Amino acid sequence: MCKSLVWKEENKKIICSTPVFEVGERLCRSPDNKVRTYTVLDTHDWAIVIPALDTKSGLQFVMVRQWRHGARELSLEFPGGVFKNDEDSAAAALRELREETGYKAGKITKLGKFNPNPAIMSNTVHFFLCEELVKGSQELDDDEYVEVVNVPWEEVFYGLGKAPYIHALMGTAMALYIGNKKPELP
Amino acid sequence: MCKSLVWKEENKKIICSTPVFEVGERLCRSPDNKVRTYTVLDTHDWAIVIPALDTKSGLQFVMVRQWRHGARELSLEFPGGVFKNDEDSAAAALRELREETGYKAGKITKLGKFNPNPAIMSNTVHFFLCEELVKGSQELDDDEYVEVVNVPWEEVFYGLGKAPYIHALMGTAMALYIGNKKPELP
Repeated sequence: MCKSLVWKEENKKIICSTPVFEVGERLCRSPDNKVRTYTVLDTHDWAIVIPALDTKSGLQFVMVRQWRHGARELSLEFPGGVFKNDEDSAAAALRELREETGYKAGKITKLGKFNPNPAIMSNTVHFFLCEELVKGSQELDDDEYVEVVNVPWEEVFYGLGKAPYIHALMGTAMALYIGNKKPELP
Repeated sequence: MCKSLVWKEENKKIICSTPVFEVGERLCRSPDNKVRTYTVLDTHDWAIVIPALDTKSGLQFVMVRQWRHGARELSLEFPGGVFKNDEDSAAAALRELREETGYKAGKITKLGKFNPNPAIMSNTVHFFLCEELVKGSQELDDDEYVEVVNVPWEEVFYGLGKAPYIHALMGTAMALYIGNKKPELP
């Protein structure tokens, strides 16, 4: 049954290049031989990290507050970012955690990977849980202004879908976290 | 403290227009007066629907399997899509549910909204739970090939982050669902 859903890509061309992605047009043939053009973004893979911190007042997540130029507002998020060079997904996650929050992790667990939007993007976003955290200092890029905030995990979870938790992929991360840890839901 | 994180947008221009989004360059001034250019996609808002079906064998989600041109693979997803004309978010959700799956919903609940990627996008994705479903027939666009599949909810939840559940925003939807319904986690 699935075979009748599969398209064939016949040609592609880049119509616009930017510092963060390339915009391409793909000419595709449908299961019943119609030809259509689809617009797709090619970019590097990303890593997103859930840094989990055991404290006297319970489990907290280490979050970063930063300005987001797409949304034109402040967003409170898990740390993360784009892979650099040939680093693997766990290396990217640990580097982003260290650079954005200053924390190093003694334990890292891969929770899963997705396409951030398979309709229009071709890259992969990898999710990790980082534990056994040890505090160091941030190493920010010169256009990064990042405030580190420790937030009780329930506050993040029940805050999803409302400001300041405006980043949809933080919801993805939380779903993976809950599937992995099965915490009691207050 | 947050004020020191806020950027000011000084100028923007469109560098590329496609059928599904516009690519813009925004000239922004940092909290300490550096000027940088950021690339952002402008597009319409989207709705994503969790269609929840009570069956004799337990709660199932009505999912759609379709080819995704960005990922170049089949994806099993909640129904959803782009707002048309001036419809509001709930109208878009109910229309996409009906067109892609054939189901009409007696009850719709808004679960939350996010920016799909606040770093590079400016639009909003709205999440809804649809219940009291009544089956009708699909109304697909002429380039849509969609297989409707009912899946036990636990299978979707624990399948997240692996094929065929490759769409990151399905994880976002699941996190909102669990926060709303607090189901027992098997």
